[in-house]
Amino acid sequence: MKRTAFFVSDHTAITAETFGRSLLSQFESVTFERVTVPFVDSEAKAMDTCRNIAEAFARDGQAPLVFSTLTDERLRQILERSEAVVFDLFEAFLDRMETTLGQSSAQAIGRTHGLGDATLGRGRVEALKFAIDCDDGIGIDAYDKADIILIGVSRSGKTPASLFLALHYGIKAANYPLTEEDLNLSGLPAGLRKHRKRLFGLTMTPERLHQLREERRPASRYAALEQCRSEIRAADALFRSAGIPYLDTSTMSVEEISANILHRKGLKRMQW
Amino acid sequence: MKRTAFFVSDHTAITAETFGRSLLSQFESVTFERVTVPFVDSEAKAMDTCRNIAEAFARDGQAPLVFSTLTDERLRQILERSEAVVFDLFEAFLDRMETTLGQSSAQAIGRTHGLGDATLGRGRVEALKFAIDCDDGIGIDAYDKADIILIGVSRSGKTPASLFLALHYGIKAANYPLTEEDLNLSGLPAGLRKHRKRLFGLTMTPERLHQLREERRPASRYAALEQCRSEIRAADALFRSAGIPYLDTSTMSVEEISANILHRKGLKRMQW
Repeated sequence: MKRTAFFVSDHTAITAETFGRSLLSQFESVTFERVTVPFVDSEAKAMDTCRNIAEAFARDGQAPLVFSTLTDERLRQILERSEAVVFDLFEAFLDRMETTLGQSSAQAIGRTHGLGDATLGRGRVEALKFAIDCDDGIGIDAYDKADIILIGVSRSGKTPASLFLALHYGIKAANYPLTEEDLNLSGLPAGLRKHRKRLFGLTMTPERLHQLREERRPASRYAALEQCRSEIRAADALFRSAGIPYLDTSTMSVEEISANILHRKGLKRMQW
Repeated sequence: MKRTAFFVSDHTAITAETFGRSLLSQFESVTFERVTVPFVDSEAKAMDTCRNIAEAFARDGQAPLVFSTLTDERLRQILERSEAVVFDLFEAFLDRMETTLGQSSAQAIGRTHGLGDATLGRGRVEALKFAIDCDDGIGIDAYDKADIILIGVSRSGKTPASLFLALHYGIKAANYPLTEEDLNLSGLPAGLRKHRKRLFGLTMTPERLHQLREERRPASRYAALEQCRSEIRAADALFRSAGIPYLDTSTMSVEEISANILHRKGLKRMQW
């Protein structure tokens, strides 16, 4: 069974994608062809979208689903006349919000959709620069400015998490790779000791690490399961003995890793 | 007028934040204290949340708003009994989705909420590594592997956009800073010429650039309005004469810049 899902927005469509995806995930047995249609900000573009919906209907033999965050009433009406089943975020909630707040909504296009600073101002951009300057063990001198320092063996997900923490939450995250040399020491590497309170460990099963390393360097000593076992065992032992909180990321997305770190360490995110 | 808005989820709360933020943006005259409550996956945690809601009610003298993506029926019921006005994503749409699809929903906790690869697999992580390896004019030898190459003067938003394109869409984006030296040439810098088709320019008003550069190096020649005017004038002239599409980012968030680039260049995002 195959159907098409459209994510329609007068702006970036990030909200439409996010809420639609969340609903679709509750129906795993249905396969959806996903089509994002951003910047639908005129009647002509809304009518183009209706044509694409009609084509999908003819192709699939089933009504497409539309997840919409259109704010303009006229554009919403055009979409309502299409063959699709429309799930409209504003229609679902705006009336009750107006009642609750005792105000009319702006019904203005593209009001939000950033997930942080409205523009390229300080918070996120500074945090991103910090994450790049302190990626993969470089920039240790700047660690006293870090909100958090992620540590873990190679390929344990430190860089993606550091960058997501910066982009989404405005958190300054450094990351430091635990090398075999580091893991042969007793205790933390010297450069990390005075930052112990800000350290956070990432770990995973040796099998998962093996799989990720095979993608990078197939059939290498680096990727060998036995090597992964030994490094993970040593890293986990270090986290425990040094009292460093840590997280098993084996089945997690970058979003999940980052949200977990923020929550467990009680970090204060930027205003949004 | 001050009220509290809670974003409650049994998982990362990224969806709850996104849809709630989108709705709140339609009521700009109300100031909201925003509280994210992720990982509410037990009755005890749901009851804790109700206590926080009651405290906010007592403090504000007005009912808090709750934007919820709780999937478990029992937890939703606990929240419904609180003093808050609850806007529940699944309650609003799930019945009609079940009817449309002719299936029951899984009502399973934390099914989705990633915005890409389920875990740390290839797509995004490779794209992120590429963005870091080709940031700020480094790694030019790898430009033939780029999906897109962002160019613009210093502080025009290239790095954040490159990283967002990687994290959110799995797009490999390089970025190259147009220096004064580059801008004094007639035509494109030599290293960029053979990649012309993949170039995309970022620009902004001289006033906005001046403001951003003042944050980095106050009262410098680099940040002076006259300097910004001259660089922007030269960069815009280059984009036009070389036939490179470009975007004015003066009032845009990183999300908006990235979504615009994706849309205008017709780039194919990773599966999600």
